[in-house]
Amino acid sequence: MPYRAPVNEFRFLFDHVVDLASVTAEERFAEATPDTVEAILTEAGRMCEEVIAPTNRAGDTHPARLENGVVRTSPGFDSAYAALAEGGWVAVSADPEYGGMGLPVALTTAVNDMIASANLAFQLNPMLTQGQIEALEHHASDELRELYLPKLISGEWTGTMNLTEPQAGSDVGALRTKAVPNGDGTYAISGQKIYITWGDHDLTPNICHLVLARLPDAAPGTKGISLFMVPKYLPKDDGTPGDFNNVRTVSLEEKLGIHGSPTAVLEYEDSKGWLVGPENGGMKAMFTMMNNARLGVGAQGIGAAEGAYQHALAYAMDRKQGKSAVENATGSIVDHADVRRMLAAMKADIFAARAIALSCAVALDRGRASGEADWQARAALLTPIAKSFGTDVGMRVADEGIQVHGGMGFVEETGAAQYLRDVRVTAIYEGTNGIQAMDLVARKMADGGEAAFSLLDEVEGFAETARETMPELAAPVWEAAETLREAVEWLVAQGDLNDRFAGSSAFLKGFARVLGGYYHLRAAIAEPGGARERLARFYITRMLPEHVGLLAHARAGAKDLYALTPDDLAA
Amino acid sequence: MPYRAPVNEFRFLFDHVVDLASVTAEERFAEATPDTVEAILTEAGRMCEEVIAPTNRAGDTHPARLENGVVRTSPGFDSAYAALAEGGWVAVSADPEYGGMGLPVALTTAVNDMIASANLAFQLNPMLTQGQIEALEHHASDELRELYLPKLISGEWTGTMNLTEPQAGSDVGALRTKAVPNGDGTYAISGQKIYITWGDHDLTPNICHLVLARLPDAAPGTKGISLFMVPKYLPKDDGTPGDFNNVRTVSLEEKLGIHGSPTAVLEYEDSKGWLVGPENGGMKAMFTMMNNARLGVGAQGIGAAEGAYQHALAYAMDRKQGKSAVENATGSIVDHADVRRMLAAMKADIFAARAIALSCAVALDRGRASGEADWQARAALLTPIAKSFGTDVGMRVADEGIQVHGGMGFVEETGAAQYLRDVRVTAIYEGTNGIQAMDLVARKMADGGEAAFSLLDEVEGFAETARETMPELAAPVWEAAETLREAVEWLVAQGDLNDRFAGSSAFLKGFARVLGGYYHLRAAIAEPGGARERLARFYITRMLPEHVGLLAHARAGAKDLYALTPDDLAA
Repeated sequence: MPYRAPVNEFRFLFDHVVDLASVTAEERFAEATPDTVEAILTEAGRMCEEVIAPTNRAGDTHPARLENGVVRTSPGFDSAYAALAEGGWVAVSADPEYGGMGLPVALTTAVNDMIASANLAFQLNPMLTQGQIEALEHHASDELRELYLPKLISGEWTGTMNLTEPQAGSDVGALRTKAVPNGDGTYAISGQKIYITWGDHDLTPNICHLVLARLPDAAPGTKGISLFMVPKYLPKDDGTPGDFNNVRTVSLEEKLGIHGSPTAVLEYEDSKGWLVGPENGGMKAMFTMMNNARLGVGAQGIGAAEGAYQHALAYAMDRKQGKSAVENATGSIVDHADVRRMLAAMKADIFAARAIALSCAVALDRGRASGEADWQARAALLTPIAKSFGTDVGMRVADEGIQVHGGMGFVEETGAAQYLRDVRVTAIYEGTNGIQAMDLVARKMADGGEAAFSLLDEVEGFAETARETMPELAAPVWEAAETLREAVEWLVAQGDLNDRFAGSSAFLKGFARVLGGYYHLRAAIAEPGGARERLARFYITRMLPEHVGLLAHARAGAKDLYALTPDDLAA
Repeated sequence: MPYRAPVNEFRFLFDHVVDLASVTAEERFAEATPDTVEAILTEAGRMCEEVIAPTNRAGDTHPARLENGVVRTSPGFDSAYAALAEGGWVAVSADPEYGGMGLPVALTTAVNDMIASANLAFQLNPMLTQGQIEALEHHASDELRELYLPKLISGEWTGTMNLTEPQAGSDVGALRTKAVPNGDGTYAISGQKIYITWGDHDLTPNICHLVLARLPDAAPGTKGISLFMVPKYLPKDDGTPGDFNNVRTVSLEEKLGIHGSPTAVLEYEDSKGWLVGPENGGMKAMFTMMNNARLGVGAQGIGAAEGAYQHALAYAMDRKQGKSAVENATGSIVDHADVRRMLAAMKADIFAARAIALSCAVALDRGRASGEADWQARAALLTPIAKSFGTDVGMRVADEGIQVHGGMGFVEETGAAQYLRDVRVTAIYEGTNGIQAMDLVARKMADGGEAAFSLLDEVEGFAETARETMPELAAPVWEAAETLREAVEWLVAQGDLNDRFAGSSAFLKGFARVLGGYYHLRAAIAEPGGARERLARFYITRMLPEHVGLLAHARAGAKDLYALTPDDLAA
């Protein structure tokens, strides 16, 4: 069941749902003409279909291996990577000064989504490089930028992020890796980092590590963290890789999924590093990288969902089992109400999650192009939702994809289970989905809810107009937005953050449910009477009502939760 | 992190929530005195903790293998099986006339739950044997009963169910395996069966297959199916295994989970079989087996959830990461609101699912002991809910268990991921959860909703009384029951079954949510002011409200769903 890139879907979303035209109207993105957008989507889609998707199973069945200190990647990944680099697909949004295309993040998000559908384990490689490029563009010295950016953007070298240590996961501030000044402007980096995605591999002659570490006199916690560029091989004067920089791969993790992506434990021992950003300013630089990466991970979830959906739909259309008395019966299990319900819910959720992610990307692009604080705040608000909901949808759709397959879904040969195993990690890395929810109700509501209310104004305004032509769909969306508004009002009134945190995951899910209703409504209005209106009706009637329970949970507060003591939990 | 059998939890549920005393008051179960119940739970719990749980990881990492036509089971499974058989734990409820203990199914359900926590792959073995015993007790001739039951009940031999063929999964009526009379009262069975759980192994000297097949002149569909006992080795006159009966293991499936459970493709070629029940009466006999097995699978889901919960709680209590300003802080991640929320939701859901499963078992026991149609109808109503909700909870809890572990959850070494991989199949086999939901809204509502209304009367009656002492908890339960009542009324009024099927999965989940509220309320009333009241408050405030969205979905009907055509889904 080959992957088919949903190029038309992206075009529709750009044109009718997330208003890409408002981005390309900005001078900065003037080159992103409709023809360019079309060409990018089509060409990237073709590469995903023809070159990358065929490597997906091999990545799962032949994991990356550590052999005598060298990481060997899965069969076929080398030529897939060559095609990716050659086509310029590593960094679609990177700075043209260093060889990037300078296109909107909205386009990068679409391209990443397609690559993730084709092979999630593989897609992590360019995604990490993208984050590194972003961090260097914003925080590195001219010298570092000139040396590294062209090689990263072209795909000649790849990049990694090194945050986690055994005792420092979600709590980055607890990290211990040391950085001692060498006296020549460089630093000696020593320590162990874990969970380093694509931390080592044989696809490129060098690998560039961005490493968080502490200077000898650094303050404890996140205020004493600095960021360093530590290449695996030290670049010679001509820019080619020279001496080994003492970055050793200790081991690779044996994981539930993304077997094709080597997850390394890396040991640094007096490895030479160059400061990126100011001393003790590492967290800020890292957040540049992480915010972008969070949207990227959301797109991964959506891409995995798309792959799982296409896989399940193809199976269902082909599988004959029992009979159901329906008009225009296909004779396949798609005739059964519960199977059709699963497929429709999968498709409706993918649409909602993709619209949220692309709206986030559009806000990011507009914020960057215009410098307007409102758009930056919108992007900041939508980032945790895009990450968390996108990955939740990835897991839910992959799980339902298994269910559509029945017994075949549990047999690895079918490939349905791989989607679930692969996508599961996306709810964990780049800040767990719980961390995203905390970010949403605390930092992203530190404005007193202003960014959220502004978005809800947009939703309600659209629903009011839509009510004239599609009252049955518009009214529930408007009402859901009101319920969400009340939840936001309740949240921002809570002085004790734990009262917000207690229901934060439910709040984020409820927020996404409501936004999904809004974007489905936009789609229905854009193509009245068609498939999109029918899908919107399905979503608004059957899935949107979930927001009621979620937003009730969101407002339950911390008291009853903490009343449940650890002893109670262990009883 | 060793498994700890929740013996006190079962005792509490039996005494205060599901009224086991009403079962043991029946003469048939007079031997199930409180002391016996206590001894059974304690001894079974000890075996699970000390003998079975230690084999769980080995089953995953060293799957059963097919070597030269012989299936080799995972390391340690042989001695675990020996302990199981020796303790008489294969069939706690089996007929004492053939060596069983004759205890209530409620106790079997508790024992199965514990074995499933300890090792789900292993537990499938006795679960299948239990189903076979049940079918033989009800439908086999005296000769077959006398020959097979003692050996199955003692665990000397094991039993399997053979339904599925490549073209006949959920649609059992499509099966093609042939049964040709040999002229001596036996039949020659030929055909291929797939997904045969524990279809072959080296734990016992014989394996007894119950096989669905068609006589030469049989009607098409389910009316032309007969059931046969086909042993792997033909019993000699002294009852010991003799000649090989041409049951060949073609292959074992490579599965997402339960690696320790060999899932076989079996090839029958003129294998000798004995009819169980009348000719063409196979479906009825198989349903005896399946109904029981459905409750058993529900218990599997709950058992897996319990294992995953204990695993996650132990990890969370030990893991230090970040700080949270709470009273009586532990210093571990349990202090974080969202982690505590996950753990509380896991525990609350396990309680709800277990109460539903045990209520179903109690109804089954009372129906059997008294012959009262009301109890039989109650058991029939609760069976699909117990199966589907129990396994949904299994998946949800295992999934949240991974999330509690953060990055460690994605690394196989931790063991958290195994729970999810193992439990995933329980939502598929013994009738997918979608099939359960269809059964609930069609066959189980063919009484016009009578059994459901009777249960809701019980719920509302209890909530009315409870309102006097715990109005905050009782009122939402009463209101939820009313909303559910309205949904049942709507469902039974639908003449077109597809209108029921369209929202059947949501209906089942909503039904379970409401019942969960009822059982939590019972627990709170039984121990006011304690941990159980606090957990009930958590569930009723934060999880019960989900029923609103679910029951709205349940009543959406088929029209809008089928308006979404296969072309729409592929667009």
